[in-house]
Amino acid sequence: MRNYAAEFFGTFWLVFGGCGSAIFAAGIPELGIGYAGVSLAFGLTVLTMAYAVGHISGGHFNPAVSFGLFAGGRFEAKELLPYIIAQVLGGLAAAGVLYIIASGNADFAIDNTKAGAFAANGFGFLSPHGYSMTAAFLAEFVLTAFFLIIILGATDKFANGKFGGIAIGLALTLIHLISIPITNTSVNPARSTSQAIFAGGEFIPQLWLFWIAPIAGAVVGGLIYKLLLQKQH
Amino acid sequence: MRNYAAEFFGTFWLVFGGCGSAIFAAGIPELGIGYAGVSLAFGLTVLTMAYAVGHISGGHFNPAVSFGLFAGGRFEAKELLPYIIAQVLGGLAAAGVLYIIASGNADFAIDNTKAGAFAANGFGFLSPHGYSMTAAFLAEFVLTAFFLIIILGATDKFANGKFGGIAIGLALTLIHLISIPITNTSVNPARSTSQAIFAGGEFIPQLWLFWIAPIAGAVVGGLIYKLLLQKQH
Amino acid sequence: MRNYAAEFFGTFWLVFGGCGSAIFAAGIPELGIGYAGVSLAFGLTVLTMAYAVGHISGGHFNPAVSFGLFAGGRFEAKELLPYIIAQVLGGLAAAGVLYIIASGNADFAIDNTKAGAFAANGFGFLSPHGYSMTAAFLAEFVLTAFFLIIILGATDKFANGKFGGIAIGLALTLIHLISIPITNTSVNPARSTSQAIFAGGEFIPQLWLFWIAPIAGAVVGGLIYKLLLQKQH
Amino acid sequence: MRNYAAEFFGTFWLVFGGCGSAIFAAGIPELGIGYAGVSLAFGLTVLTMAYAVGHISGGHFNPAVSFGLFAGGRFEAKELLPYIIAQVLGGLAAAGVLYIIASGNADFAIDNTKAGAFAANGFGFLSPHGYSMTAAFLAEFVLTAFFLIIILGATDKFANGKFGGIAIGLALTLIHLISIPITNTSVNPARSTSQAIFAGGEFIPQLWLFWIAPIAGAVVGGLIYKLLLQKQH
Repeated sequence: MRNYAAEFFGTFWLVFGGCGSAIFAAGIPELGIGYAGVSLAFGLTVLTMAYAVGHISGGHFNPAVSFGLFAGGRFEAKELLPYIIAQVLGGLAAAGVLYIIASGNADFAIDNTKAGAFAANGFGFLSPHGYSMTAAFLAEFVLTAFFLIIILGATDKFANGKFGGIAIGLALTLIHLISIPITNTSVNPARSTSQAIFAGGEFIPQLWLFWIAPIAGAVVGGLIYKLLLQKQH
Repeated sequence: MRNYAAEFFGTFWLVFGGCGSAIFAAGIPELGIGYAGVSLAFGLTVLTMAYAVGHISGGHFNPAVSFGLFAGGRFEAKELLPYIIAQVLGGLAAAGVLYIIASGNADFAIDNTKAGAFAANGFGFLSPHGYSMTAAFLAEFVLTAFFLIIILGATDKFANGKFGGIAIGLALTLIHLISIPITNTSVNPARSTSQAIFAGGEFIPQLWLFWIAPIAGAVVGGLIYKLLLQKQH
Repeated sequence: MRNYAAEFFGTFWLVFGGCGSAIFAAGIPELGIGYAGVSLAFGLTVLTMAYAVGHISGGHFNPAVSFGLFAGGRFEAKELLPYIIAQVLGGLAAAGVLYIIASGNADFAIDNTKAGAFAANGFGFLSPHGYSMTAAFLAEFVLTAFFLIIILGATDKFANGKFGGIAIGLALTLIHLISIPITNTSVNPARSTSQAIFAGGEFIPQLWLFWIAPIAGAVVGGLIYKLLLQKQH
Repeated sequence: MRNYAAEFFGTFWLVFGGCGSAIFAAGIPELGIGYAGVSLAFGLTVLTMAYAVGHISGGHFNPAVSFGLFAGGRFEAKELLPYIIAQVLGGLAAAGVLYIIASGNADFAIDNTKAGAFAANGFGFLSPHGYSMTAAFLAEFVLTAFFLIIILGATDKFANGKFGGIAIGLALTLIHLISIPITNTSVNPARSTSQAIFAGGEFIPQLWLFWIAPIAGAVVGGLIYKLLLQKQH
């Protein structure tokens, strides 16, 4: 059970830290942390938890990562479902706590007709800067594929595995530096689900893309690493 | 005595660097470092001192961390009081030097009716962006709990312990990226005490929250790690 | 073939992440990542891929780096051409995907009379802040020379080689922090070629400088390390 | 001679990268890197060169560091003069190249009646935000003292020495995050000398402070570490 607890707390931290920094601190005039600060926050949630509980559960914190590691031959099929349940529950719990804290501000309100409400992901009219569904799908697909190449490569037994937490965490920072304007950046169905449920409205019917595109990208990334890059052992 | 000296100088650096960057450099128009820069500064104080004197004292620099490590079974009760005294004295000395340097600027004045005066922590009308006492307590509690999970996990004997200073320092950066707008971010009673004493006014009667919430969160975080996550040795 | 695949995917990621962050996220009012965010993105592409596939191909992702490593005595002449072909193809593929994603935004258009169009490099009237050809050449030459000194030094057998990915990736961040205003920063002919081809117009006749200056600098940097700094084995 | 060459190139890079980022990229409207970006740049010059040539010369790149290491018992007196000469020459060479590149911009001019001209250090009317001579001296003294505590601690034989380059480089970033508004941040007489000579005017008669305060602070920091913190071997 310790590995499921690790995935629960790790995904809680990813959503609480990443989406929390976006909700509380991104848009404050003059002093706010902007998209670069949110990018750093998302990456640091993974970097910190990878070193804290990676030795317990492997440190996925993301259903797409679990699928990609399965495709890459590093994770068992029978563990997929319990890991994903723990991840989604962790994300939902974090979003709930974020909601309570945000409600402690008199100005707080979720306007779910606007992109980025409660840090939710979206495309088309819910893309932060007006990117189409096709652009959103392609971006999420490519970014998650490379995320998995980095995860599989940095933890390869021929690599400097102890640096994996730094490389993987900062890869998530980089992914956000590129794509917050496109989809508000998902690459993680658990993170998208928790925020869509609290934002509601049109974010719910868009949620499918943030399960399909990251998982498809992760599987392709896992296969690319396994078939084209990995040394045959 | 070397461990108490290490805690004194480490907490001095945390307050001097973190609060100093906020006081001197955060709000300068156009060029200022903003909340993201202050977040980085706080984290780097811990990262740098963890590698510098962590091998001497364990590198707590924070009464909540000392309590949480005690709850997690990694620190002796009899060391709590001397560590906390060294930490509070280090913070006070740093705030004093910050006060002298700031006074060398003709425009310097502490307006303790405004949130964030002399980098002090607050809630309600002294929250940087108007968060209630409940929101402030919850944020400080949750953030310190996760800070301790990261500290205990990253220094676990089954983890890559040498990376602990990076993970723990950057966890503090992440915590600030999330919560400066809520409470100006404490998670550290020593840092709150030194700044409240110099800011004065209404910051003093609010100081209790920045002892109770971080220590309570740290104890819960320590117990979560010990009971739910740590492998049984 | 695995090493050529690693160079292809590594250079894809460098162009996709570095130029993508510039195209999508740099200039958004208030929240955009600015030159500092783009600098971080470029560096993190190399940091992440160095740990992911550095053990496969050495992690050059840049024709100038391949030339400089050859000059420094760490890379074979016969591998230069296939590495450079893989790098240029990887960059072109990334620029193509960036173009498709960018086209999913109704406002997208490449104005190749303006500096920085599609993240292309330039000098004179195509320098982001009006630097002359001589200044551009000198900057690219010096920066690539030091890039190679850092690469050769950080991977020297007497150095802490496992940290090479951090030092080399963050060296690229530093190089961008200095020189985006001068040339939009190349130090990498593959990255310049992919963006010039998609930007077109006057960027094409300026492309020569971004092959000659980085490669000349890299060769000089490689020789400086080999002749003046490296311990004689 | 290789160690003197390493100090020459390392200090060249510190001045070229740190002061170069300030001169070229800090103040550009909207997109500029600001004080936070300059802080990152200075730190990364040391981080990158520490891993690149630290194994050759120890990686001082700063006369105050050489003095502080001598006070801490880690550096020989007879090496002080040649190291400092190499450092000052490296800084001057870098400032010369910066001057040539900057001159390639039609708008370039050094106005040495204004704080921060050519990234030079100053106090009083040449302090970026109007800090007095006393405040400037105290800030430079305290910051350099802690810089040496971090350097001596992070490279102590009981510490995780391989992380020293990260801790020491990011300590310099932190120091800049605090103090650019006060003195434009020196803590390094070689860096101050090269910029004062090119800026000229009133910067020259202020240069004494940026030799005396950092070296005095460094010596005190070295003694604090040696006498109060270091385990007796």
